[in-house]
Amino acid sequence: MFQKFKLNLFLFFTFNELQCALLYESNALQLGNCDDLSLSLKSEIRGYQPIVNKIVKTVTQGKFKGQTWEELATFIDKFGSRISGSENLENAIDYMLQRSSHYNLDRIHGEPVTVPHWVRGKEEAILLKPRHFTLNIMGLGGSVATPKEGITAPVMVVESFEELKNRSMEAKGKIVVFAETYVSYGKSVVYRQYAAVRAAEVGAVASLVRSITPFSINSPHTGWQDYSEKVKKIPTAAITVEDAQWLLRMHRRGIEIEIKLYMEAHTLPSVQSRNTVVEVSGSKDPEKFVLISGHLDSWDVGQGAMDDGAGAFISWYSTVVLKKLGLRPKRTVRAVLWSGEEEGLIGAFAFRAAHNKSDIVILMESDEGTFMPQGLTFKGTAKAKCIIQEILKLLEPLGTNQLVLSDDVGSDIMVWANDGIPLASLKNANERYFWFHHSDGDTMAVENPDVLDKCTALWASVAYILADMSIMLPR
Amino acid sequence: MFQKFKLNLFLFFTFNELQCALLYESNALQLGNCDDLSLSLKSEIRGYQPIVNKIVKTVTQGKFKGQTWEELATFIDKFGSRISGSENLENAIDYMLQRSSHYNLDRIHGEPVTVPHWVRGKEEAILLKPRHFTLNIMGLGGSVATPKEGITAPVMVVESFEELKNRSMEAKGKIVVFAETYVSYGKSVVYRQYAAVRAAEVGAVASLVRSITPFSINSPHTGWQDYSEKVKKIPTAAITVEDAQWLLRMHRRGIEIEIKLYMEAHTLPSVQSRNTVVEVSGSKDPEKFVLISGHLDSWDVGQGAMDDGAGAFISWYSTVVLKKLGLRPKRTVRAVLWSGEEEGLIGAFAFRAAHNKSDIVILMESDEGTFMPQGLTFKGTAKAKCIIQEILKLLEPLGTNQLVLSDDVGSDIMVWANDGIPLASLKNANERYFWFHHSDGDTMAVENPDVLDKCTALWASVAYILADMSIMLPR
Repeated sequence: MFQKFKLNLFLFFTFNELQCALLYESNALQLGNCDDLSLSLKSEIRGYQPIVNKIVKTVTQGKFKGQTWEELATFIDKFGSRISGSENLENAIDYMLQRSSHYNLDRIHGEPVTVPHWVRGKEEAILLKPRHFTLNIMGLGGSVATPKEGITAPVMVVESFEELKNRSMEAKGKIVVFAETYVSYGKSVVYRQYAAVRAAEVGAVASLVRSITPFSINSPHTGWQDYSEKVKKIPTAAITVEDAQWLLRMHRRGIEIEIKLYMEAHTLPSVQSRNTVVEVSGSKDPEKFVLISGHLDSWDVGQGAMDDGAGAFISWYSTVVLKKLGLRPKRTVRAVLWSGEEEGLIGAFAFRAAHNKSDIVILMESDEGTFMPQGLTFKGTAKAKCIIQEILKLLEPLGTNQLVLSDDVGSDIMVWANDGIPLASLKNANERYFWFHHSDGDTMAVENPDVLDKCTALWASVAYILADMSIMLPR
Repeated sequence: MFQKFKLNLFLFFTFNELQCALLYESNALQLGNCDDLSLSLKSEIRGYQPIVNKIVKTVTQGKFKGQTWEELATFIDKFGSRISGSENLENAIDYMLQRSSHYNLDRIHGEPVTVPHWVRGKEEAILLKPRHFTLNIMGLGGSVATPKEGITAPVMVVESFEELKNRSMEAKGKIVVFAETYVSYGKSVVYRQYAAVRAAEVGAVASLVRSITPFSINSPHTGWQDYSEKVKKIPTAAITVEDAQWLLRMHRRGIEIEIKLYMEAHTLPSVQSRNTVVEVSGSKDPEKFVLISGHLDSWDVGQGAMDDGAGAFISWYSTVVLKKLGLRPKRTVRAVLWSGEEEGLIGAFAFRAAHNKSDIVILMESDEGTFMPQGLTFKGTAKAKCIIQEILKLLEPLGTNQLVLSDDVGSDIMVWANDGIPLASLKNANERYFWFHHSDGDTMAVENPDVLDKCTALWASVAYILADMSIMLPR
């Protein structure tokens, strides 16, 4: 998942920090009552119970049991991490197109997206004083390199941007370490985003920032960060929670700290990539579509199984399930596997520019984990919400009938946030999501076959009904 | 904590696997009743309540509050990991002797221990087929090196020793990967211990073993392993849970796997080290002593804060507390910070050889975590158990009054297991202990100041009473 939310295509201009922070917090809204929903609509929705039961049964106990996980594992084991701009991501996209042909999905194609091509290269941070120790680091996305000889400099440790401001006279020529306290991802991620800019503003030569995670086994977490055109670009990397706390303790004791930082990070020319698009075409009104999605690109660390391989695969495999069950709805169910998400929702911006908004029934995305599914997080009108709620009642046996209203419903699909189109994301028990996020811990070990089945069953059921109902979801 | 249990000093001869396994499992015995304990003894023990209250209050709320953690953090931040044989461990021992002088402890000295000197050196494992990937490994203690050009070989993955036996014809010339399921540390650690021997027996050229942990963020865990004189010594290392599962999946799919392993591990001549010994000398019978302990040596990864810096420090700081409170018991309270624990309880064997068993009231050790303390795990006679139980009642306000009987009460002190001396270890909420154990995640971030205070308060209280009571703890 991208740090959400950055609206840009080729240039990065950033929302203010407060908004960034708010977007990540729980924004549950009042559900209101649904007495106005017509009896005939309620009755129509209830009529889908046998189809939902069939989907749930075949996915969680029948011929599709374990298959979402198997498909994902085969893919992840083969390709591993898939950073935008890499040949590996393009090979992975080709594989998905081929795999879609194997399952005889409809209108299989890639849609063009121009993505940046940032390359990590070798990187190393060695503590030279007070004792020799190799810190476990991960350069942040978009960072520039150090000079070839590295940067060797004294260290200043701060706990907040405010402390840096108050002690700005001390920062010149130093490596500034941000050892902020983790509050929540939304509140703390600003340190990753702006560490380099804030440090450079006061004359620092590099910045190191505590990884944005509540839990660590000495595990660094990467992610995108934002330079400003007005300030010198300095190298910037994440360090572990443990090392940040250690450096802070020593700094508070007045111990002299020196670090040698070496990074080869650089940005190559942008690359033509693709959103992977497949569907089960509608029988009656095929141009209208329910969009289910996740992103196929990942960071260049770990295996990109959780962020967002699994989100992409429950979407993609939902179309396989519908196809193989012969469930062709009136409108189209389209799965889109975004490219360029981690660098700024770039695939979503390209898709939005290329497609008629009036054709879209709903945009759904899973990019906040595929742990035990609980239901949906939804953004839309009161009436649309009532319809979703009615649909989720059919999924009570699966235990995925919760509905939460929120203005924050995902990453890529937030690109349409102001277009009035209904948006939904997967609500799941993702309390440990940020333990693995953007780290080497993002692997198949995070994903569970039975749990993924439940995610797919929910996803396919909701998508089918919304594509097949007599009315489009109201806006 | 050592893999327990290995009884040796210079040569390693190992207990059978079953025993090793059993020793790690919960071995709770029946508590029985304590009606036979005399009223006068009960009354005498109850008389210690004001002293216990004073210790608990000053340690958890008063002048010692946070000090165990502060002392530990200052030590860990300065020295980091302290493997046996290293100059760093000897410097750390010198520091503890100086620090003990600063607190004016009694009979401060080191006692000689000859320890092995294994050096990790550089190490790397690169997956060459089916795709290029650097595996996150940790060589296992005592491993030999690869040739300078490394070992490049096809890979065979097995899930058990039994599977290796059944498929032994396939192993020749291969790197054998053990991808065992984690059952419990005691049951699974045999794979780390004997991976190299079992693989070499069937002609393998190296072995890689899934880290012995129930949870991982791609974090490898080292630990001692045992060669046999009868079998060729092959290089052996731990890989992560995630990578082991990945390699297993690919192997089961019939995909050809090739790894290049490079390790510089080697053993230098043994080194003279020391057990660090300090005390609060008894006022009446100073040759008799209550021994409280933890080990000062650690693995060469992480910072050795949990295993066993904190165990050593609650023991050491208990003597500081007693000294500063002017609590001099009739017998001696002696803190021993063992050396050479990780390579086979070597410091404990040396101490046992040098000291009269009849002088020891009880041997206590904390080497299974200093998470929220709950009480004591105890091995001894029924009457001794009743006395301990009576003492723990005084600690009810601290919430540390649980008593569990077990034949498994620690690591170093198990060297005395057959000597009839009462043994006790710290019972604590250590469910996550093996998440960090022998890994880079063993840092100060695992330790909590308030929790360490409670450990110290319990430890100091029990040690004081057992050293001061009218009778020696019965055998």
